[in-house]
Amino acid sequence: MLTLHGYWRSSAAYRVRIALNLKGLDYAQVPHDLRRNRHQADDYRALNPQRLVPALDTGETVLTQSPAILEWLEETHPEPALLPAPPQARAIVRGMCALIACDIHPLNNLRVLRELKSDFGADAARLDLWARGWIAEGFTALEVMVEKHGGGFCFGDAPGLADCCLIPQIFSAQRFGVDLRPYPALRAVNAACDEHPAFVRAHPIHQPDADAGES
Amino acid sequence: MLTLHGYWRSSAAYRVRIALNLKGLDYAQVPHDLRRNRHQADDYRALNPQRLVPALDTGETVLTQSPAILEWLEETHPEPALLPAPPQARAIVRGMCALIACDIHPLNNLRVLRELKSDFGADAARLDLWARGWIAEGFTALEVMVEKHGGGFCFGDAPGLADCCLIPQIFSAQRFGVDLRPYPALRAVNAACDEHPAFVRAHPIHQPDADAGES
Repeated sequence: MLTLHGYWRSSAAYRVRIALNLKGLDYAQVPHDLRRNRHQADDYRALNPQRLVPALDTGETVLTQSPAILEWLEETHPEPALLPAPPQARAIVRGMCALIACDIHPLNNLRVLRELKSDFGADAARLDLWARGWIAEGFTALEVMVEKHGGGFCFGDAPGLADCCLIPQIFSAQRFGVDLRPYPALRAVNAACDEHPAFVRAHPIHQPDADAGES
Repeated sequence: MLTLHGYWRSSAAYRVRIALNLKGLDYAQVPHDLRRNRHQADDYRALNPQRLVPALDTGETVLTQSPAILEWLEETHPEPALLPAPPQARAIVRGMCALIACDIHPLNNLRVLRELKSDFGADAARLDLWARGWIAEGFTALEVMVEKHGGGFCFGDAPGLADCCLIPQIFSAQRFGVDLRPYPALRAVNAACDEHPAFVRAHPIHQPDADAGES
């Protein structure tokens, strides 16, 4: 049995939930409330030295870092494939994933915003501006890639790893008030995923630890 | 013929140079001086919509994002392998890579430090503190992983993808004045790589665009 350590609003955990659903895998969830620093507890550090979510307990070991977990899922549960077969196409999909996972998300996650607030005295409006800027810069480039390679989803006409990364980033962008009008290709993918049960079930608001008062 | 678009001091380009050297591949280099914003030029945007380095021109297409390029190299030039064979072990190595590429490097690269300076008025000393904090947090977790899984290199006794990511991050850490004494396992890997020709040839100071006056 797979057990996902996550948090309803964590982008990185949301990626893994989508992939698990696309693969048709059952999994248990252990939520760690990041706002209350529950992921900093010693018992969780024993599982994940980095004390971040997600971590996936496979029954044999605990895997960390969502990009590594997504690749592990693809290697151990190859159907349906979330990467295309040709190496060049795989590199394009992985490039989209890394654009999001390395160049957008790390700059607007909770731990970084907290540091900006404590170290530089940034208020909520300033933090939103900071996050929006990096999201817009990344989405501008990603729009070009998805416009070129997409066909309903980020790459081609079936959901894959790039969609697992994009949809949580769009959810986050909406929370920060990013204007999505300049990104019609990304919005089209988002609309397609909004209708897809694997994505719907993975949505933060449908998680057991979702906070009804917040979105 | 492979052509690497990079910059001598870019951590992400440095990762790709190491991997190319480990694979024994010849490649040309096209440097883009990030300090002079040469990567923002329109002709480069036509190659890479994100206008970041590295990009690898394979002759057929231009691949972007170092994590995607490293995986492409591994798939198209499997020997010597830079990932172990068992999926669980691959996930551990990729987890180390992502810890660096998603949770350390994005927070202390040039474009982010520039924004911190312009948006929050951070001076050089404050920027160094910011960078050091994230590097120390990441290295503390990575030390536990390398201590557990390493045997000369980050994972086992041969260089692999995690080493391609770690060595540029250590180079960067030294520039920011990070105290490396708390990380003996990482220092041991660094010492091993310092003796390895693939790593030596990839070092920033040995690149054609290296600035003799700076390190």
